[in-house]
Amino acid sequence: MLATFMYGPGDVRVEETETPTILTPTDAIVRITLSCVCGSDLHAFHGGGIRSGIARMGHEFLGIVEDTGADVSTVKQGDLVLAPFVWADNTCDFCREGLHTACRHGGTWGSTDAAGIVGGGQAEAVRIPLADGTLVKLPVPEDSELLPDLLTLSDVMCTGYHAAVKGRVNEHTTVTVIGDGAVGLSAVLSARLLGAPRIILMGRHTARTDLGVEFGATDVVPERGEEGIAKVKDLTNGDGTHVVIEAVGFPQAFDQAFGVVRKGGTVSRVGVPQYTEANVGMQAMFFPNITLTGGVAPARAYIETLLPKVLDGSIHPGRVFDRAVALPDIATAYQAMDDREALKVLVRP
Amino acid sequence: MLATFMYGPGDVRVEETETPTILTPTDAIVRITLSCVCGSDLHAFHGGGIRSGIARMGHEFLGIVEDTGADVSTVKQGDLVLAPFVWADNTCDFCREGLHTACRHGGTWGSTDAAGIVGGGQAEAVRIPLADGTLVKLPVPEDSELLPDLLTLSDVMCTGYHAAVKGRVNEHTTVTVIGDGAVGLSAVLSARLLGAPRIILMGRHTARTDLGVEFGATDVVPERGEEGIAKVKDLTNGDGTHVVIEAVGFPQAFDQAFGVVRKGGTVSRVGVPQYTEANVGMQAMFFPNITLTGGVAPARAYIETLLPKVLDGSIHPGRVFDRAVALPDIATAYQAMDDREALKVLVRP
Repeated sequence: MLATFMYGPGDVRVEETETPTILTPTDAIVRITLSCVCGSDLHAFHGGGIRSGIARMGHEFLGIVEDTGADVSTVKQGDLVLAPFVWADNTCDFCREGLHTACRHGGTWGSTDAAGIVGGGQAEAVRIPLADGTLVKLPVPEDSELLPDLLTLSDVMCTGYHAAVKGRVNEHTTVTVIGDGAVGLSAVLSARLLGAPRIILMGRHTARTDLGVEFGATDVVPERGEEGIAKVKDLTNGDGTHVVIEAVGFPQAFDQAFGVVRKGGTVSRVGVPQYTEANVGMQAMFFPNITLTGGVAPARAYIETLLPKVLDGSIHPGRVFDRAVALPDIATAYQAMDDREALKVLVRP
Repeated sequence: MLATFMYGPGDVRVEETETPTILTPTDAIVRITLSCVCGSDLHAFHGGGIRSGIARMGHEFLGIVEDTGADVSTVKQGDLVLAPFVWADNTCDFCREGLHTACRHGGTWGSTDAAGIVGGGQAEAVRIPLADGTLVKLPVPEDSELLPDLLTLSDVMCTGYHAAVKGRVNEHTTVTVIGDGAVGLSAVLSARLLGAPRIILMGRHTARTDLGVEFGATDVVPERGEEGIAKVKDLTNGDGTHVVIEAVGFPQAFDQAFGVVRKGGTVSRVGVPQYTEANVGMQAMFFPNITLTGGVAPARAYIETLLPKVLDGSIHPGRVFDRAVALPDIATAYQAMDDREALKVLVRP
């Protein structure tokens, strides 16, 4: 079968590799019918991030169950299923607390488990460890128009929602979202879902911020850095907003977040930090009582909440996809996203 | 009158200075009958912290109202009153949200307001701006045995409580407290008040950790650094605790906190950070979904909750005081605390 590998910065290849098979009784094999490229894949594409060596790429996908191990009971051959960003047992104490990214038996796509290779989702098929805990059966036909919306629940929409939940967004909190990428726009949609009365989107790509406004942004600030901070302060009586969602990951965005957060407020990060050290000192954080939160989203924890909203059409998070490519052409999707010509790209087999 | 000034690192002097008088109609003058030295004063004593020039010291005090401005209505001459760590109007939006440290009209002791000098609390008297918002009348006699307990509500006990509240300590959260100083011990007492079933105190001064056990610590870990982290992990099934209260302020304590916090957990800082940059990167914070919170405590916000518990004897936070000096001898109190011969020192006129 075909799968996507990153050999190094800028070097994405689709190659023939071994078709996965059931290795343990809790496995399933899923034939992938829709996947996509993540903003976090681009960090690796830049040579940043945490990957080293040749990496199996992709962690957002849905598809059809082709085979199941003897112990799998919640999905069966022919089911249309969604896989969240990590595989997990969905039963351990961390999973029960909604932190599937810390599952005691889970792991990430494109890695290994005790039985062998666990492939990535930018491929024709993948072996799913702990299939009962990991997979979510989708109650729609294989050719549903909702598939792009549903695919966002594997990561990007849940990541935006995680940012808003960790930031404790509610009907009393004003919100700034830094970044008009797919995660930032998903965060806008999530902040609206949670009732935020004011949502300031900081971004300067008009096509994206226009979608942000449709998703619920009440204000758009295209300026960055000190100029952008001043603009948000102007919009908020000099105070900044109660919650700031940082959906970029670069140090400049971290500093910008602390520049626009209201005293006593929260900076919630979902942009994968491309830095280690940052200013969390007396003036930036301690005296004004700022909270810093966020992290890798346990997408599985939010699917029960968000899936019904997709099914009933009250949200359309799949609007972040503005292009589609065939799997063999996936390198062009990476390049288009890296060049900011595409917001987020669907990948079909 | 006499007041305490810090001329520079290690150079604390008690000198004659002008006796304060009412400058604006919202002022009161308080004759101080009891104050103390704070761990944060020691940072200045070391030459660290944020002070420069000659500083008026002291921000924890209680005393008798000597005079009030025409607009003051909640306290009158002769009242025994407590002053929280900052002065504040107690009516602005920040104060109503419980963040008096961000009061739109407030400030810190040992500074100035629009009318002139606002003295420090290690003195014979002080002018109180916004007296109605700032002062809390104490319903006990001037010679009550509870005065040391009540004095802790000006800062240290409320700071420990703030750490626990910001960390969202409850009956389901395990807690580690780093630091056996007066704030750390107050945090132990606060975590117990909030129902934490397990409270691990990291400290190695036996007299202090013994008091910590009386305050509610279930375990004491004297080891520091990697050894201390391993010990806490051993005590918690390898996981660490849901909440870690960092009551020291040095970078080593920050790293130790991240070493013992459970995935998905919270590090709540109340030790004044003696650093600016710290590791908040992918591995330390983002992937495990750690929250970093805390800050300067809005003591005023917690007095309604804690004062009744002191009055009914259910808590005795004043046990952190293990020495008393007369104001003219206050330099010996700084030195004794700096040498760790004294935990926290009362100062009497």
